[in-house]
Amino acid sequence: MKKVGIVMGSYSDLAIAEKAADTLASLSVPFEVHVYSAHRTPCEAAEYAASAEKNGFGVIIAIAGMAAHLAGSLAAQTVLPVIGVPCKSGNLDGIDALLSTVQMPSGVPVATVAVDGGVNAALLACQILALQDEGLAGRLKSRRENEKKAVLEKNRTAEEKFSKHL
Amino acid sequence: MKKVGIVMGSYSDLAIAEKAADTLASLSVPFEVHVYSAHRTPCEAAEYAASAEKNGFGVIIAIAGMAAHLAGSLAAQTVLPVIGVPCKSGNLDGIDALLSTVQMPSGVPVATVAVDGGVNAALLACQILALQDEGLAGRLKSRRENEKKAVLEKNRTAEEKFSKHL
Amino acid sequence: MKKVGIVMGSYSDLAIAEKAADTLASLSVPFEVHVYSAHRTPCEAAEYAASAEKNGFGVIIAIAGMAAHLAGSLAAQTVLPVIGVPCKSGNLDGIDALLSTVQMPSGVPVATVAVDGGVNAALLACQILALQDEGLAGRLKSRRENEKKAVLEKNRTAEEKFSKHL
Amino acid sequence: MKKVGIVMGSYSDLAIAEKAADTLASLSVPFEVHVYSAHRTPCEAAEYAASAEKNGFGVIIAIAGMAAHLAGSLAAQTVLPVIGVPCKSGNLDGIDALLSTVQMPSGVPVATVAVDGGVNAALLACQILALQDEGLAGRLKSRRENEKKAVLEKNRTAEEKFSKHL
Amino acid sequence: MKKVGIVMGSYSDLAIAEKAADTLASLSVPFEVHVYSAHRTPCEAAEYAASAEKNGFGVIIAIAGMAAHLAGSLAAQTVLPVIGVPCKSGNLDGIDALLSTVQMPSGVPVATVAVDGGVNAALLACQILALQDEGLAGRLKSRRENEKKAVLEKNRTAEEKFSKHL
Amino acid sequence: MKKVGIVMGSYSDLAIAEKAADTLASLSVPFEVHVYSAHRTPCEAAEYAASAEKNGFGVIIAIAGMAAHLAGSLAAQTVLPVIGVPCKSGNLDGIDALLSTVQMPSGVPVATVAVDGGVNAALLACQILALQDEGLAGRLKSRRENEKKAVLEKNRTAEEKFSKHL
Amino acid sequence: MKKVGIVMGSYSDLAIAEKAADTLASLSVPFEVHVYSAHRTPCEAAEYAASAEKNGFGVIIAIAGMAAHLAGSLAAQTVLPVIGVPCKSGNLDGIDALLSTVQMPSGVPVATVAVDGGVNAALLACQILALQDEGLAGRLKSRRENEKKAVLEKNRTAEEKFSKHL
Amino acid sequence: MKKVGIVMGSYSDLAIAEKAADTLASLSVPFEVHVYSAHRTPCEAAEYAASAEKNGFGVIIAIAGMAAHLAGSLAAQTVLPVIGVPCKSGNLDGIDALLSTVQMPSGVPVATVAVDGGVNAALLACQILALQDEGLAGRLKSRRENEKKAVLEKNRTAEEKFSKHL
Repeated sequence: MKKVGIVMGSYSDLAIAEKAADTLASLSVPFEVHVYSAHRTPCEAAEYAASAEKNGFGVIIAIAGMAAHLAGSLAAQTVLPVIGVPCKSGNLDGIDALLSTVQMPSGVPVATVAVDGGVNAALLACQILALQDEGLAGRLKSRRENEKKAVLEKNRTAEEKFSKHL
Repeated sequence: MKKVGIVMGSYSDLAIAEKAADTLASLSVPFEVHVYSAHRTPCEAAEYAASAEKNGFGVIIAIAGMAAHLAGSLAAQTVLPVIGVPCKSGNLDGIDALLSTVQMPSGVPVATVAVDGGVNAALLACQILALQDEGLAGRLKSRRENEKKAVLEKNRTAEEKFSKHL
Repeated sequence: MKKVGIVMGSYSDLAIAEKAADTLASLSVPFEVHVYSAHRTPCEAAEYAASAEKNGFGVIIAIAGMAAHLAGSLAAQTVLPVIGVPCKSGNLDGIDALLSTVQMPSGVPVATVAVDGGVNAALLACQILALQDEGLAGRLKSRRENEKKAVLEKNRTAEEKFSKHL
Repeated sequence: MKKVGIVMGSYSDLAIAEKAADTLASLSVPFEVHVYSAHRTPCEAAEYAASAEKNGFGVIIAIAGMAAHLAGSLAAQTVLPVIGVPCKSGNLDGIDALLSTVQMPSGVPVATVAVDGGVNAALLACQILALQDEGLAGRLKSRRENEKKAVLEKNRTAEEKFSKHL
Repeated sequence: MKKVGIVMGSYSDLAIAEKAADTLASLSVPFEVHVYSAHRTPCEAAEYAASAEKNGFGVIIAIAGMAAHLAGSLAAQTVLPVIGVPCKSGNLDGIDALLSTVQMPSGVPVATVAVDGGVNAALLACQILALQDEGLAGRLKSRRENEKKAVLEKNRTAEEKFSKHL
Repeated sequence: MKKVGIVMGSYSDLAIAEKAADTLASLSVPFEVHVYSAHRTPCEAAEYAASAEKNGFGVIIAIAGMAAHLAGSLAAQTVLPVIGVPCKSGNLDGIDALLSTVQMPSGVPVATVAVDGGVNAALLACQILALQDEGLAGRLKSRRENEKKAVLEKNRTAEEKFSKHL
Repeated sequence: MKKVGIVMGSYSDLAIAEKAADTLASLSVPFEVHVYSAHRTPCEAAEYAASAEKNGFGVIIAIAGMAAHLAGSLAAQTVLPVIGVPCKSGNLDGIDALLSTVQMPSGVPVATVAVDGGVNAALLACQILALQDEGLAGRLKSRRENEKKAVLEKNRTAEEKFSKHL
Repeated sequence: MKKVGIVMGSYSDLAIAEKAADTLASLSVPFEVHVYSAHRTPCEAAEYAASAEKNGFGVIIAIAGMAAHLAGSLAAQTVLPVIGVPCKSGNLDGIDALLSTVQMPSGVPVATVAVDGGVNAALLACQILALQDEGLAGRLKSRRENEKKAVLEKNRTAEEKFSKHL
């Protein structure tokens, strides 16, 4: 199976990276975690993305805040799908990172998920890889089924908790 | 090859859908174009997404404006990757559609591209499908190469146009 | 009397749901509380709304955050009035949920109240039901009268507290 | 049947009022259209709302732009449901009117619809009145059915238009 | 001297009202403090403003949050200058209150100050009253002079603190 | 009577200045119109404000766009009331000018009106001057009365236009 | 004298680049104009910036819209000052480009000017170069003086135009 | 070497000023720190900027929040480069200060960095001064190199921490 590459723009984004990593691990998808800054290590970041395909990666997840250029700069170097996770790491609640990640000009897309959306980035990566891996597709469907059951269990809790009001 | 499904929430989004369609056609990727509204045809939209995998689709592109629920409601019914294209179709410049598309809760991701980003949605779909299609990967790389050449050609134009200022 | 259905998109929205529930209880309006996610349990949510009318509901209150599709997806399945309560549950102060709830396309309205506005959602539900229930209308008017008296009492407190400045 | 009162804050909002009026007329719901400004005719606006119930109104639709206080000031005078339509009438795309209409403090709700959402305001009024009028409920369901058919018709158009790409 | 009327929309805005009150007291300007809600006590609020001129008020300061209609609704009842103080009291950082206060339609102005700007509202009231009160004008100029001295004192502190870096 | 000083930051703001000027003229209030830029003529702007009181001005209206510093920089030089009119003159719809004008730090208030609110700035200036001029207060009340009549006339027009729907 | 490098991210930004170029030409500062895209020609853009210092450039002006990464990606490759001009080129009025340009993380600054601020970018470049070029400093001061005269001339026009109102 | 002048608009911005100061000290660049308010000490602020060039300053850093006029008002008095640091000091997360600082009208640029970006303001000042100081340019390049090494060290930490997932 192809690997997922998780790249943080700064080690301070570790909490978000761990959410992605835990999700991938729970779905038995191999991954690596890296720290490459679009601005402090631009060459290493570019080199990483340019060689990602031949190094066995299938999807790259880029996690960055503020003027979050990381996802876009990796995407510029590869035709592998790049998923961008904008982070809340400055004063502006992450709206700066969201717009910097999602508003990519025509030609180089970034698949953007919600602010601090580490779990969904991992799930999206799995959904992409599952196109060629029926086992993974099955695990994703099971996960969905479990989430559904958890909601319905909570539904029963809520219905009972307020049942006296009928 | 798996097909791409392009779904508009309203036929008024046709211009964006055509940008996606033209891009897919130029890369020889098969696709279908549909109109399903998350609010006016919720059952048909859900049914479409729920059966997309077995109907031969590999990726779904959802195009919608305002409180753009289409991408999320399709994503809720399938583990195929769903790409969301927020449209500027109301008074708020598309920021409503962007937030409605990208800020998905944990569990059901939508791969969001820029407001009105029909071309990039198609390219992202191709990048996903290219993971299992070397020919498509090659065509994507050629397209990038051509875009690069076009920029460098424009660079020469600009350099010459202003060359007297040295 | 018709019941009010309070639906949370996630059990983590319980605090807002309780504000709505307490308000309904104080006005002797019967209600049920449920948890249905537009994305994790789309079919159950749709089924709930589609059968709400025949199950004795008169108004539905939908509480959700982030890309808050819950109110819209319930509204798509019924002509009962659906009240949307956008929640602050992500990083963006609830503006994402507000726009996702209020900016519904033509054809399927959602009656949106303020971010985290659980009390007002319940009052609006009561105002709707009171059109056919004079007793409830009377209780709403009494509640308004009490709120007015509370403000005027506070007014006296403030006037006295600063009365030495004349 | 109870009437719907459509109130514009300024005659310049006529286009939005007409969308609401046409929708109500198409559903055979009686209505009146008024112009009352929360700031230029505050007493008349208040008097209108305070006497709306006894004058046969069931729902009030308030249409206003900028610092749109109209819906809130009418709602303060009645326990009839008040639907607010924020308008784009200044430089800020209607976001000022949206926040001024929807962010009502606890105690006095306004049922807010999308910016310039005249059609949805009328539909929401009808959905409220339909709770005690089965005929109207039926007409609303027919309208939904027709909208669904129109979308599906457009779906066929789109599918055919791009059918050569399979 | 004419009095300043400070009106809070809710007693929860007391901290802002106290900043205004303390500022007025320090400048020996008489004032009263009231609580009137534009939505819970619309008639009392209107009556207060309509009779403010004959009751000896010269300026009204209105303090309110969320869909802050208070300043506008008072301004609609009087030609006395009304100063609006938008408050941060909901989830949206006060931007809702700011737009609801400042974006008044043509005909009824509100003199808006910064979010939570209780001190500046009081100073603005004094600057208005000082047009006919040389003593107050003098006290305002002294206050400015003192503020200037305080800044210049801080300047010396800062210059010394970092003086070794030359 | 004291004069009103209208200051534009740029002659390109003339349309807004004329709205203010016409309003003042219609109320027989003397005024002057100037062009002083906070950034291109900072000394002249400061000198104008510093000498405004002794030159017979009672209120200053400052009209500026983008990073609109004009109102604040004039206010820093005088204890006369300064009214700020933020203009839409760049790409950001005037929100930049609004925040630059209204968010003044404690100590130096600016009485801010709506974006492009030239008429309201003039009316606010008149309301301030009317505190010591009963004739002007009377003219302001007449103007309000005329505006009220105009709204009520439009109300009759609207009521008749749609009267067939009852 | 060191040259200024003007880099557009896309040839469609030519109008802004020309404003910068004209300003530099008017101040006799040598410059070159290029087109390098951060995403379509990342290597060429990086190489350009990395070699700019030894190629005789003193300042780089980067002009880009949407998720405007150009300025940041050039700044990552050089310690020459990089000036960023965010452009309005998508649906979001340039706020996306502004935040993408200005919110750079610690370590790699971009000197950001206003949206579409081509003239000011050129002036800022000149102000930087003028630190080591008294002639250029003099020309900048003359330009300022001329701008001041133009404002004062407009002031006289405005004063005369409205002089009858005293 | 020319000095850097760090000016705070208020002593409460000291934390940001210290970040700038520490950065300059670490690069052996001489600087002074001052407190001048654009509104409370406009004349002293103007005088400081007007005489900065002859007093040996090469770059000015202006730190201010809310309606942050400081950078612009200093820039109006000098052709030295002025760097603006918008601060989060009110309720609006610093977006008010950002727009007030960056959206300068044509003619008087401010080089704006990120909200609370004290370190980057200092680095930008150094990059400007380094144009005529090879030693400083060298120290800046070393600092970049160290930052790069720190990122790569963190990269190794991350890679190892998650290495079991391959």
